[in-house]
Amino acid sequence: MDTITLAHGAGGAQTSDLITSIFRRHFDNAYLTSDDAAVLPAPSGRIAMTTDGFIVQPRFFPGGDVGRLSICGTVNDLSCMGARPLYLTCSFVIEEGFPVGELDRIVSSMGETAREAAVVIVAGDTKVAGKGQVDGLFITTAGVGELLPGIDLSGKNAKPGDAVIVTGDIGRHGCAILLARDEFGIEADVTSDDAPLWSAVESVLGHTKDVHAFRDATRGGVGTVLYEIAKESGVGIRIDRGKIPVDPAVGGVCGMLGLEPLYLACEGTMVCFAPADQADEIVRILRKGKYTANAAVIGEVTADHAERVTVRTEIGAETLLPPPGGELLPRIC
Amino acid sequence: MDTITLAHGAGGAQTSDLITSIFRRHFDNAYLTSDDAAVLPAPSGRIAMTTDGFIVQPRFFPGGDVGRLSICGTVNDLSCMGARPLYLTCSFVIEEGFPVGELDRIVSSMGETAREAAVVIVAGDTKVAGKGQVDGLFITTAGVGELLPGIDLSGKNAKPGDAVIVTGDIGRHGCAILLARDEFGIEADVTSDDAPLWSAVESVLGHTKDVHAFRDATRGGVGTVLYEIAKESGVGIRIDRGKIPVDPAVGGVCGMLGLEPLYLACEGTMVCFAPADQADEIVRILRKGKYTANAAVIGEVTADHAERVTVRTEIGAETLLPPPGGELLPRIC
Repeated sequence: MDTITLAHGAGGAQTSDLITSIFRRHFDNAYLTSDDAAVLPAPSGRIAMTTDGFIVQPRFFPGGDVGRLSICGTVNDLSCMGARPLYLTCSFVIEEGFPVGELDRIVSSMGETAREAAVVIVAGDTKVAGKGQVDGLFITTAGVGELLPGIDLSGKNAKPGDAVIVTGDIGRHGCAILLARDEFGIEADVTSDDAPLWSAVESVLGHTKDVHAFRDATRGGVGTVLYEIAKESGVGIRIDRGKIPVDPAVGGVCGMLGLEPLYLACEGTMVCFAPADQADEIVRILRKGKYTANAAVIGEVTADHAERVTVRTEIGAETLLPPPGGELLPRIC
Repeated sequence: MDTITLAHGAGGAQTSDLITSIFRRHFDNAYLTSDDAAVLPAPSGRIAMTTDGFIVQPRFFPGGDVGRLSICGTVNDLSCMGARPLYLTCSFVIEEGFPVGELDRIVSSMGETAREAAVVIVAGDTKVAGKGQVDGLFITTAGVGELLPGIDLSGKNAKPGDAVIVTGDIGRHGCAILLARDEFGIEADVTSDDAPLWSAVESVLGHTKDVHAFRDATRGGVGTVLYEIAKESGVGIRIDRGKIPVDPAVGGVCGMLGLEPLYLACEGTMVCFAPADQADEIVRILRKGKYTANAAVIGEVTADHAERVTVRTEIGAETLLPPPGGELLPRIC
């Protein structure tokens, strides 16, 4: 068994072999059975539920791979709502002829990331598409988490006076993918930031429940999140260019290619909105975290300029951040 | 906006337009927000969770379409565990250039089927892949359901003496897809059986909790399910060829092409294992259901011939059902 065949997706003996030799080996847990659905203890109170699809190319990149990404993406979407990630499902569409060794590496990375994030992969599905019907492998994950009591996080909750915090330096995932595609002939030492962030969110919410929103700055980057929240909350957002943490290598690549780091994707960085008097303590807590050492306050929410995002430049001028739209460069998840 | 562009998947303004004009319109409900995950009341007791991917070609076929299929598949997987389906997520990978009108029809069908099945689509994701990177459109759904109290359904629970019941006539989905592909030049009036089966399962479990297993006979059909349960429960299964309900048109196509209807997929038919003394009443209840009017007892579980499925032919001979394996003809979900 060196490559995936259509028989691996047909539901018979070969499918069963694939499940045993790859998926069950890396995901092993008591909930994963041969039945049609996993039976699980229900969380109490309120739950969060989400899904995300992953079609990134290349599948392996500095700092991660599509498997790690597929776990972090769903874990972080749950975390953003203040929900402890509990249960994940994963669904694969695999192209006929896909190397089994590569699948094994990806699934192994998913298992490892799930263990790091303390989530359990409780159910899965595999479809094999004919040669040319899918570009290698697509993964879709879905997840359920248990909301911490007493919190109310939503993109609608940002309020004038809130501080705008990023949990780390921005744009690393988008930049890493762009370099890994090798289309521009640029070499730079940039690794993806993809990481599970529940521990970071939990630490912050353990200090204060008075946080208004977390949002994962994935597709579209921090700039898109700022515009989304400005619109959903009906507020303005002003950020300071000089306060935005950007890795020097990412900044250099952006300079060479004329890219705005605010629109480069992150996969392990969130934007947080909280009352200004909580901001310093939140940043202090985040900076102790494994993946959030570069957290910083980058701006504030304003009552004026509703639904707009403005940037105060290093020399004090204030300009409108061009609204997001159009194709991403590059597609990153 | 006639066709899907890469910008529709980039997370910016066009993604937002697509969500509003198509997904939100057909899926509208209070849980569907712009946040990263839906916040939901937690079910009580035990929950079931599952996922399934759908890449069927053609996307529209007599009796259904990939959208209806994507809801029924996950609803039925939850139902098999005795869990009332509550919440679904759906994730789309769409090829650049895909007609927006066709997407609208598919999403509309998903919305309609979800309402029929009384489930709520609480979260979604859309990725757009470049031309040639995906064959049109793939859908992945995941679902959470609430287990009815006091039941214990599992493929491991079949016992010698159990009756083997099918909830309807078999093989219609696989046969409909095969004909819709028009590769054999056969015309026959066959429609897919794709349907949500929770009401049927609930009616049976409302009569008796003494049911050992339900399993959806999708990929691989009833024959594959019988071999799976025989193996998982360590029992033999004997079925009567003459008792298996097969639509005459399906039987005719199978005869012409030399296909075994037991290995043709169903998308609205389950196999049920229950003590023999419950069987007649279960069949009577099922026959009152919208999608289960052709339910029938087709065989029994035996202590001998463990892990094997035998078929008693119309003339009384007993033969081994060839075990499943290899490619499906045709790929059906």
